[in-house]
Amino acid sequence: MIKVGIIGATGYTGGELVRLLLNHPETVLTALTTTSQAGMRIADIYPALTGYTDEVLVEADVAKTVELCDVVFVALPHGHAVAVGREVLKQNKKMIDLGADFRLKDSSVYEEWYKVTHDGKEMLADAVYALPELHRAEIKGKSLIANPGCYPTSIILALAPLLQAGIINPHTLVIDAKSGMSGAGKKLTEATHYVEMNDNVDAYGVGNHRHIPEIEQELARAYGAKFFLSFTPHHMPITRGILSSMYADLTRTVDEAEVRALYEVAYGQEQFVHLLKPNIYPHTKWVAGSNNCHLNFKIDPRTNRIILISAIDNLLKGASGQAVQNMNILFDLPEETGLKFAGLMP
Amino acid sequence: MIKVGIIGATGYTGGELVRLLLNHPETVLTALTTTSQAGMRIADIYPALTGYTDEVLVEADVAKTVELCDVVFVALPHGHAVAVGREVLKQNKKMIDLGADFRLKDSSVYEEWYKVTHDGKEMLADAVYALPELHRAEIKGKSLIANPGCYPTSIILALAPLLQAGIINPHTLVIDAKSGMSGAGKKLTEATHYVEMNDNVDAYGVGNHRHIPEIEQELARAYGAKFFLSFTPHHMPITRGILSSMYADLTRTVDEAEVRALYEVAYGQEQFVHLLKPNIYPHTKWVAGSNNCHLNFKIDPRTNRIILISAIDNLLKGASGQAVQNMNILFDLPEETGLKFAGLMP
Amino acid sequence: MIKVGIIGATGYTGGELVRLLLNHPETVLTALTTTSQAGMRIADIYPALTGYTDEVLVEADVAKTVELCDVVFVALPHGHAVAVGREVLKQNKKMIDLGADFRLKDSSVYEEWYKVTHDGKEMLADAVYALPELHRAEIKGKSLIANPGCYPTSIILALAPLLQAGIINPHTLVIDAKSGMSGAGKKLTEATHYVEMNDNVDAYGVGNHRHIPEIEQELARAYGAKFFLSFTPHHMPITRGILSSMYADLTRTVDEAEVRALYEVAYGQEQFVHLLKPNIYPHTKWVAGSNNCHLNFKIDPRTNRIILISAIDNLLKGASGQAVQNMNILFDLPEETGLKFAGLMP
Amino acid sequence: MIKVGIIGATGYTGGELVRLLLNHPETVLTALTTTSQAGMRIADIYPALTGYTDEVLVEADVAKTVELCDVVFVALPHGHAVAVGREVLKQNKKMIDLGADFRLKDSSVYEEWYKVTHDGKEMLADAVYALPELHRAEIKGKSLIANPGCYPTSIILALAPLLQAGIINPHTLVIDAKSGMSGAGKKLTEATHYVEMNDNVDAYGVGNHRHIPEIEQELARAYGAKFFLSFTPHHMPITRGILSSMYADLTRTVDEAEVRALYEVAYGQEQFVHLLKPNIYPHTKWVAGSNNCHLNFKIDPRTNRIILISAIDNLLKGASGQAVQNMNILFDLPEETGLKFAGLMP
Repeated sequence: MIKVGIIGATGYTGGELVRLLLNHPETVLTALTTTSQAGMRIADIYPALTGYTDEVLVEADVAKTVELCDVVFVALPHGHAVAVGREVLKQNKKMIDLGADFRLKDSSVYEEWYKVTHDGKEMLADAVYALPELHRAEIKGKSLIANPGCYPTSIILALAPLLQAGIINPHTLVIDAKSGMSGAGKKLTEATHYVEMNDNVDAYGVGNHRHIPEIEQELARAYGAKFFLSFTPHHMPITRGILSSMYADLTRTVDEAEVRALYEVAYGQEQFVHLLKPNIYPHTKWVAGSNNCHLNFKIDPRTNRIILISAIDNLLKGASGQAVQNMNILFDLPEETGLKFAGLMP
Repeated sequence: MIKVGIIGATGYTGGELVRLLLNHPETVLTALTTTSQAGMRIADIYPALTGYTDEVLVEADVAKTVELCDVVFVALPHGHAVAVGREVLKQNKKMIDLGADFRLKDSSVYEEWYKVTHDGKEMLADAVYALPELHRAEIKGKSLIANPGCYPTSIILALAPLLQAGIINPHTLVIDAKSGMSGAGKKLTEATHYVEMNDNVDAYGVGNHRHIPEIEQELARAYGAKFFLSFTPHHMPITRGILSSMYADLTRTVDEAEVRALYEVAYGQEQFVHLLKPNIYPHTKWVAGSNNCHLNFKIDPRTNRIILISAIDNLLKGASGQAVQNMNILFDLPEETGLKFAGLMP
Repeated sequence: MIKVGIIGATGYTGGELVRLLLNHPETVLTALTTTSQAGMRIADIYPALTGYTDEVLVEADVAKTVELCDVVFVALPHGHAVAVGREVLKQNKKMIDLGADFRLKDSSVYEEWYKVTHDGKEMLADAVYALPELHRAEIKGKSLIANPGCYPTSIILALAPLLQAGIINPHTLVIDAKSGMSGAGKKLTEATHYVEMNDNVDAYGVGNHRHIPEIEQELARAYGAKFFLSFTPHHMPITRGILSSMYADLTRTVDEAEVRALYEVAYGQEQFVHLLKPNIYPHTKWVAGSNNCHLNFKIDPRTNRIILISAIDNLLKGASGQAVQNMNILFDLPEETGLKFAGLMP
Repeated sequence: MIKVGIIGATGYTGGELVRLLLNHPETVLTALTTTSQAGMRIADIYPALTGYTDEVLVEADVAKTVELCDVVFVALPHGHAVAVGREVLKQNKKMIDLGADFRLKDSSVYEEWYKVTHDGKEMLADAVYALPELHRAEIKGKSLIANPGCYPTSIILALAPLLQAGIINPHTLVIDAKSGMSGAGKKLTEATHYVEMNDNVDAYGVGNHRHIPEIEQELARAYGAKFFLSFTPHHMPITRGILSSMYADLTRTVDEAEVRALYEVAYGQEQFVHLLKPNIYPHTKWVAGSNNCHLNFKIDPRTNRIILISAIDNLLKGASGQAVQNMNILFDLPEETGLKFAGLMP
């Protein structure tokens, strides 16, 4: 059994990890840490867990947590994973970081967008940006796993095969993404106050959301050169789900069959990425509660553009589900272990 | 492996059975029937199943379906289970009916509330009202399983221990229940049109909902005598979940500890029924997506009443989850097989 | 023109008063006070007001505010209206308090339920519990207007005529009420965090909500004697609206026509209280955005009970709309001035 | 008083017209027509109107309706306004069509996108595309008023000033729009079934929505030449509101002040169009329930693009509110008559 620690178990991604790992046949929850609620049971914080675990939260002692565990998940805002990563390397363990600290290869980009100094620049080269469907081989054997952001996951999966094939012009990329409110986390804010958000839709982070450099880095890798793109996130009055709508000019005439073939090559053998049938576009409800990504596209001959739509559950394929998928890779388990469930219907 | 048929696989309870049984380690989906969508894949109707099954829907041929399967679930409105039940008895198979046809022991009560003739009166004595936590022993060995209604499950679980103990006066019972809209099924109606129901709450079936006789029958059994109660269901703008609020006069002075002890005896060993800690009242969100029932109560000395609150997911513990639980009992499997998952959080 | 002050203009009931009074033909907004946002425009806090007013919020100086205005609305939590009331009496102005400080005639009851000392006991006799449809005559000429609570308004309007007629037994009263989340105010709490409440229903304040003594006081007045009742409020995932479901034993045989006649006498001439047609039960959506109360009932011969359902918008008839109605009475304006609009549909 | 007829009074835009006109000081509702519900009161269909009107619906007799009225609103799907328009011209009355029949100047474009023959081509030249803020002068004196579509209103208002100023490249335009479900009308469909849409977001009409030619026609007029654009609508789980997010390459370097100045010139004197303060982006909730359009923009120097966000209430500024605004223009009333109300907050 894999001994697992979750540093920051009480936030939404931490709680989701607990829920998933309780049903994972090869793990044992060894340490659930918290900064302010030590001594409480995780089931008191998430009453949905009543009857499933009596595990008690403990204060975060990084060295000790790493020592007790084979792998630690860091489910905290950016800035907290560097110390964990250092300890993990020292003790020869594994870290899966759900935050941003190890995602950007260029620490100056990190410092520009996150407005803080990066304290672990020397470790960045050892870390892997861990989107399994694209970088599976790289992940195995690594110790520092940078789990992708929720928006980036929904976007990179859709665009990478087209950029690799050179059929879209990256300089024309416009990405309009819509997220459920669990993506905003547990922190109480006016924007997440029920009556302000119920029956409401709005745009935020217009032109400056922190996921932009991460998306650009990974798409540049797929394309083979750097470029800038437009990305605008929106708040949606739903709990879970991201729908990303993407627009790009085609570089040449392509037909639907050719594009479908590209996705078939990329994801035809994947368990979690599904191109829907023609003219059926993703609904967030179809993936919510699962680790799946649904996607589809439309070629628009009027504008010579392709329009792509993808959907994921931001807490699963966009965070904790993908993190478990990465853990499975690290420990040579079938990748879908503990993740083989369809979304709730309806 | 248990060969399973679902008669009426495309409705919400049918689709939920498919989702559950795909993850059940001891079953194989053998026949999914439909009246109008034969030839389609179930995954085309429920795209959340994309990648999980390519099973194709077939026309409902009752005799053949029963022949092919060890157990058939009937996930249809009332009136359709009698023919299936007859075939099941003939072929010595099992039926779990999610509808009302076999719930009421007195066919005249059925005919009064459902305004139709009961065509299988002779089978009623053989059927069992299958609320596992109360009637587990009776269920084993039976062939005709009447799976309880959603509202009744949430209510009977909360009230039966108190009625058995004689501490509440059943003639004073008032039950005010709130349901998510998946309880209204897939049929398109004005009441279930998105904009009519979004941001809306209303009462319906005031004084004449068809679950009344079922609740009265089962509570009379717990109490030992017949009585009438008030039951008013309400539409809530949520997808899944029932919250039942119940009020009754106490027959004598009781304290919280005594009532908690009654529930401990009744459900202390149960996997799916949980009395919450004092002063923590159920939220439908805490059980949605699980087969759990959460409950709690308050003794009000001012009025000498007890107030009880219970919550379930109407499609799981209120329908398909409980049906799988009953199947597990019938086939001597651990009762929680295929049902050991907590609700989604958040 | 009536010069109006709003003490506490930034909360939801304060903002709603601003919105209403901007469209009121006989008022001028003279002072909008705040404790923490002085200097901001109210339209910056409520961007829906963009283009309607450039009014700037000022620090609350009670004496000065009262001096500048003919009437002041107090839209603050309990405990703040006593000082205002004293000033209003001194300066011979009018106060309409949307809080609880002047609603309970017996200060010991107030102190028991609100856990604070009442600092203005000597003024209680001068205050009027101002539910216009029941106490219109009393309101005229008074200076201290206690605007009823939201839950109490929805309940008292439905029950008072039946208690006055003696056809229901008050000792059997059970009230199960459901409220939209704007009733919880602007304060950020876990219970009002979007993802905790979206797709959720729960009960709160079970057996001890502070509106209980207010409801009991006013219903006792209608009935002619004191009694205790059960009242349980619930959180609903809607923005505006209260639906109250009420249950009581009948004291004698009555038929629908007799009950309809009682309501016709009570409210047949009212602009804001409407008994719906038989078998049509209130939806919160039908009153949201209006100052209306919709109600209807069902006589249940099986249990010899009557079931009543009423609906209001908690911010309008349950708070600010009713407050404007009271202001209209105080200043001899037609009662519907500034309030003659139907709810949004859909 | 202006005598008003509404042809198709029972749909959502028809019902909204009734609600608005009941509060309009210069109109009298003279004929409310329906195809299937004649004899019912409009208040029975929209119970929110209880107490506001006892008007009874009548069968649609076009000639007679036009005869009785000074102006008729056509609140029906496309294809029904041609016959009304012909009658209106014959009787020298006014028609305001909320459908698409008179919006497109080129009947072949209409026929291509709507897949039907246009039966009134000869009248198209007489009709005016009536977006008041842009075409006020043209509207006065006309008889056939084509009220703009909901999506187009939100988009044209935002883009026209920039296209007229030549600062954006129209060939790069990408428009990603999100609509509340009232935009889908009253027709019952699976897509508008409550539980399918609750907690869901999806794209529809990808690449082929019928509002595309209307948007292109009007933006070409602003720009001075034809071009194609990308437009993708999305379903949002809200009742009212459209949020349009628009992206275009800048043709030259501009700064925020220059763009703000363009909008100031265009809309500085307008009652219903409001550029928000810098960095404050529209929320649909801030305009829902009002006739307002809120907008704002961001210049992104990284991509040399401008990102624009606009919000309207699809039933008000996107349909019935704008129709009343147009009626006010036709009858020389102040344009805001009957429309001077802020949106509900919250």
